Amino acid sequence: MNKQGLNLNTLGEFDLIERFFKRAANNAYPHILLGIGDDCALISCSAKDQVGDLAVSTDMLIEGRHFLPGAGPFSLGHKCLAVNLSDLAAMGATPVAFTLAIAMPEVNTKWLDEFSAGLLALADEHHCPLIGGDTTAGPLTISITIFGRVDATKSLKRSNAKLGDDIWISNTLGDARLVLGNIRQEWALDPTEIALVAPRMHAPVPRVTLGQKLLGVANAAIDISDGLLGDLSHILKMSEVGAEIYIDQIPCSSTLGNQSLELKRLCTLMGGDDYELCFTASTTEREKIQSISKTLGLTLTKVGKIIPVPTEVSCNLITLLDEDGQILPTELSKQYLQSFDHFKTPN
Amino acid sequence: MNKQGLNLNTLGEFDLIERFFKRAANNAYPHILLGIGDDCALISCSAKDQVGDLAVSTDMLIEGRHFLPGAGPFSLGHKCLAVNLSDLAAMGATPVAFTLAIAMPEVNTKWLDEFSAGLLALADEHHCPLIGGDTTAGPLTISITIFGRVDATKSLKRSNAKLGDDIWISNTLGDARLVLGNIRQEWALDPTEIALVAPRMHAPVPRVTLGQKLLGVANAAIDISDGLLGDLSHILKMSEVGAEIYIDQIPCSSTLGNQSLELKRLCTLMGGDDYELCFTASTTEREKIQSISKTLGLTLTKVGKIIPVPTEVSCNLITLLDEDGQILPTELSKQYLQSFDHFKTPN
Repeated sequence: MNKQGLNLNTLGEFDLIERFFKRAANNAYPHILLGIGDDCALISCSAKDQVGDLAVSTDMLIEGRHFLPGAGPFSLGHKCLAVNLSDLAAMGATPVAFTLAIAMPEVNTKWLDEFSAGLLALADEHHCPLIGGDTTAGPLTISITIFGRVDATKSLKRSNAKLGDDIWISNTLGDARLVLGNIRQEWALDPTEIALVAPRMHAPVPRVTLGQKLLGVANAAIDISDGLLGDLSHILKMSEVGAEIYIDQIPCSSTLGNQSLELKRLCTLMGGDDYELCFTASTTEREKIQSISKTLGLTLTKVGKIIPVPTEVSCNLITLLDEDGQILPTELSKQYLQSFDHFKTPN
Repeated sequence: MNKQGLNLNTLGEFDLIERFFKRAANNAYPHILLGIGDDCALISCSAKDQVGDLAVSTDMLIEGRHFLPGAGPFSLGHKCLAVNLSDLAAMGATPVAFTLAIAMPEVNTKWLDEFSAGLLALADEHHCPLIGGDTTAGPLTISITIFGRVDATKSLKRSNAKLGDDIWISNTLGDARLVLGNIRQEWALDPTEIALVAPRMHAPVPRVTLGQKLLGVANAAIDISDGLLGDLSHILKMSEVGAEIYIDQIPCSSTLGNQSLELKRLCTLMGGDDYELCFTASTTEREKIQSISKTLGLTLTKVGKIIPVPTEVSCNLITLLDEDGQILPTELSKQYLQSFDHFKTPN
């Protein structure tokens, strides 16, 4: 088909996928037996190309809800895939491939060029090709399903936290929330501060290698998409345990550290969109974890421990302790323990 | 967690998945190692639970574009999964599992009860469990990614049609378009007629078993979602061949057969949403195909054959012949050869 004289008014969905999202065939991914363009893609599971067990995760992102209207298409493309790679990371899985379903109000080739560039650059970095898709007209909505491989017996399940485990987080928390608050005019940062932390919101780094290295070391893991306390509580519920969190030991960037204690706590405890990993591991693994941290050049910090579920029914699964080891006043604690939820009042 | 006293205003996305979409754990699906509720689901690919190669397809359906506003939630749930099962069928794959990402403007428990009932009934019928999902607030949008297993070397690829192949279709075509036109008041059917054909639009039957039985028999296949001529042209482009279609041999229901020749041709040639299979097979396979038809109690009809690509550049890949074997006049032929496309003028 002649692609030179594309008329945008008649540019159809097959052209869109072919033109913007399909890479030239190559031999870099021998386990992808069939990619974009048929009824299904085909991933090899034969012994020769053994992909281990298959980890699958799916996500739907909507303009105005998960990202700001008019978000830059390059960073949006990056972020859409990053949040899915982050789910693989939280399982310890190695990326294999992904599919993309996208609704757009109109065919904007400049937008599509930039969006696909951001998406595919991160895909290439993680050797995770796009193998299938669907495009349609509608409010801007992006749904990605991602596949990884992992030995299921070693994968980092939410349900596997053990009493006495340390609770760790990677890197620092709270910068994405700090940036969001600035955009929403909840607070004001100066331009030099913004420049330092903006990438944390717009170009999150999925901790894929960390997740892989934690296989056989960590007991449970989750990625922090909705805020540390909310996400940790999923581990606690599924593992039927409680946790103590030393809220003033949660590492944050120097930019966030320069803000008030109140703002720092809000961002590190409840801020979403960080895509760092929260994991639990036996105290016997501390040395290994420090060694992983060194190898990756990535800070890993103990921020709490797994304890029994509080006996009083009214108690939360998470107990918050300040820098003096004192339990936080109930009201303050309650405030922090609210987590973001897409069907509750928008935050 | 106490689920009795759910407050809908605070019913969060985790509750939605748990309450409406999660089935009690059972041992019916030993190859699903981990289902809903973690960062990823896990599908076994180990030798013991060998799933063959993995076929993957993804789809996004939007209210007002792919289904009518206010569509009945039970049949909507059925249809969303049916269209994805149909993609597996067109590859000859056996369903393994699926994921669901859904945006809804509000939490309507009655709607969710019915939608999930329709969705999961069809899932159970095809032994295809829901293994993961994402729910969010937004305009009603449903994105499903489905997984099947198939031996990749035998799968029914679009690119494999051979010169001289017969072109077959399953069952009858055009009823879904006939119903849609009635709803849109393009034409008027009487209530008894509507009652006969309405299920073809609202509750399509994916031809999963047919697809499986065509492995090793058919050369190429596609499911008819956008209209016979449009979908067939994907096979032709990818196989670099042309086709002759005997347009008055395309089987239709007696209801559609009772309409004008013009309407009958429009619906059978260009009508989408039928989800029957169109496949090509060597003439040496006719007996086997008739035998499959008998076994399944499903009509399979030859409607054309694969021919070389026309030498004149201006010609279409598809040549339409009427009941006397005469090539249709160019203008009429052009009209039929337009296919539905989501970014072109809505039909």
